[in-house]
Amino acid sequence: MTLETLSTNKAFGGVQGVYRHDSRETGTAMTFAVFIPDHAPGEKLAVLWYLSGLTCTHANVMEKGEYRAACAAAKMIFVAPDTSPRGEGVPDDPEGKYDFGLGAGFYVDATQAPFAKNYRMRSYIERELPVVMAANFPVDMRRQGIMGHSMGGHGALTIGLRNPDTFRSVSAFAPIVAPGQVPWGEKALAGYLGADRAAWAGYDAVALMEGGARVADILVDQGDADQFLDEQLRPSLLERACNAAGQKATIRLQPGYDHSYYFISTFMAEHVRWHAERMR
Amino acid sequence: MTLETLSTNKAFGGVQGVYRHDSRETGTAMTFAVFIPDHAPGEKLAVLWYLSGLTCTHANVMEKGEYRAACAAAKMIFVAPDTSPRGEGVPDDPEGKYDFGLGAGFYVDATQAPFAKNYRMRSYIERELPVVMAANFPVDMRRQGIMGHSMGGHGALTIGLRNPDTFRSVSAFAPIVAPGQVPWGEKALAGYLGADRAAWAGYDAVALMEGGARVADILVDQGDADQFLDEQLRPSLLERACNAAGQKATIRLQPGYDHSYYFISTFMAEHVRWHAERMR
Repeated sequence: MTLETLSTNKAFGGVQGVYRHDSRETGTAMTFAVFIPDHAPGEKLAVLWYLSGLTCTHANVMEKGEYRAACAAAKMIFVAPDTSPRGEGVPDDPEGKYDFGLGAGFYVDATQAPFAKNYRMRSYIERELPVVMAANFPVDMRRQGIMGHSMGGHGALTIGLRNPDTFRSVSAFAPIVAPGQVPWGEKALAGYLGADRAAWAGYDAVALMEGGARVADILVDQGDADQFLDEQLRPSLLERACNAAGQKATIRLQPGYDHSYYFISTFMAEHVRWHAERMR
Repeated sequence: MTLETLSTNKAFGGVQGVYRHDSRETGTAMTFAVFIPDHAPGEKLAVLWYLSGLTCTHANVMEKGEYRAACAAAKMIFVAPDTSPRGEGVPDDPEGKYDFGLGAGFYVDATQAPFAKNYRMRSYIERELPVVMAANFPVDMRRQGIMGHSMGGHGALTIGLRNPDTFRSVSAFAPIVAPGQVPWGEKALAGYLGADRAAWAGYDAVALMEGGARVADILVDQGDADQFLDEQLRPSLLERACNAAGQKATIRLQPGYDHSYYFISTFMAEHVRWHAERMR
């Protein structure tokens, strides 16, 4: 397995890198960003996974997320994968919309043609990229947290709930908490997994929790001026599910904030510190 | 004078806005970004001007500069103008290069055809935009600092040195310190001001200082892995001029850092605090 270095820049005493490798899961080249804080030779660092939202690549949070100061202070590696396979031959949304296909992998392993071959973002994030990380970077894989934004918040919650032994902490900005109950999710899950809703439950944080899944701790921030709040995000569904399940969770409505990286960057340092406290 | 609001986003408790107005100086619509920290009704805040480098608009530092946390803490307004006039009829570099014309106004008032009509970034920054700021935002114009990056570092140094009663503090990331002695500057100053070098001295920080100009305090950070260091930036020329002039200045070489916003964002909070201390 060869890792190609696309760029490295010194930042906050560490190194912000962008890397590419040929993914077995997606059958494509995949690009991801990693920030490695300054550290002692041989030292292994905790790792925080960040899953991005619709239309994003690895670059959005790298440029606008403002995580490096907090990660440097907490000595935590920050990994930002892409949001879908890309490249010639990778099928896109038949309607050409932003909410399915390229940039919209929804962190599932697709079962439906023509998407099943490449759209394997679940296995890519859960199985393949961790091996790449462990082989190439000074990560302590016993100390992992996961977070995400919007579609990536859905990814972080579902991956966290399915892998509670791997992730000590799960946080999200403005997550899609119940894709099976909202338009973005219904389109994506039907498209990737087929019309049978029974196949969707493993990719729905609320449904997973109703089915008994738990994770150590959850933190969610949601802006109350978010244009997608009522139709697509619906954090009250997560709140209700956590209460019913006895799941430890802090779900906060932040007045005046929208769905953008201006919102994310405002609370990023606090999320990074929250994860760091849970990885000690 | 009408100010059009293009966008506002809540961030770090304040508001990041983007605005447009018709500039009398440039004869074009000009776009700029302003961050207003949370503040009490009627309270006036100090203001920090940020001048961007070649190819940039108001947006680069707004997205990648990581200044909002520090400005919110210091209660300082942050203003980021564009780097040149733009629009139909604005003449660009005849060679089509990035280092002259659009995105490369060099903060001068051009005297040469066909640039003299629109390329009036000196008067735009020194005279016109301050009036717009004072009329539309809660700024305390007695407390102003100015900073910039690369070409914008040149702008901050020269505008600061020409207006020591306006700006209490001047800082720069990787500035062009002596445009009259480096290729970027020679091309720009000749193109905008003509071949007679006597006309360039007012737009060259080192020459200004040699001519007696002083400002209260200067802070410069320069990465030693900056690809433009030796040919275009040459901070030692500024260091020598400051020493000869008895100009108070801190000029630091930062090991491993390049010319990018990964470098700028690393030291941004420190610069913001440095300005804030000088505006008390």
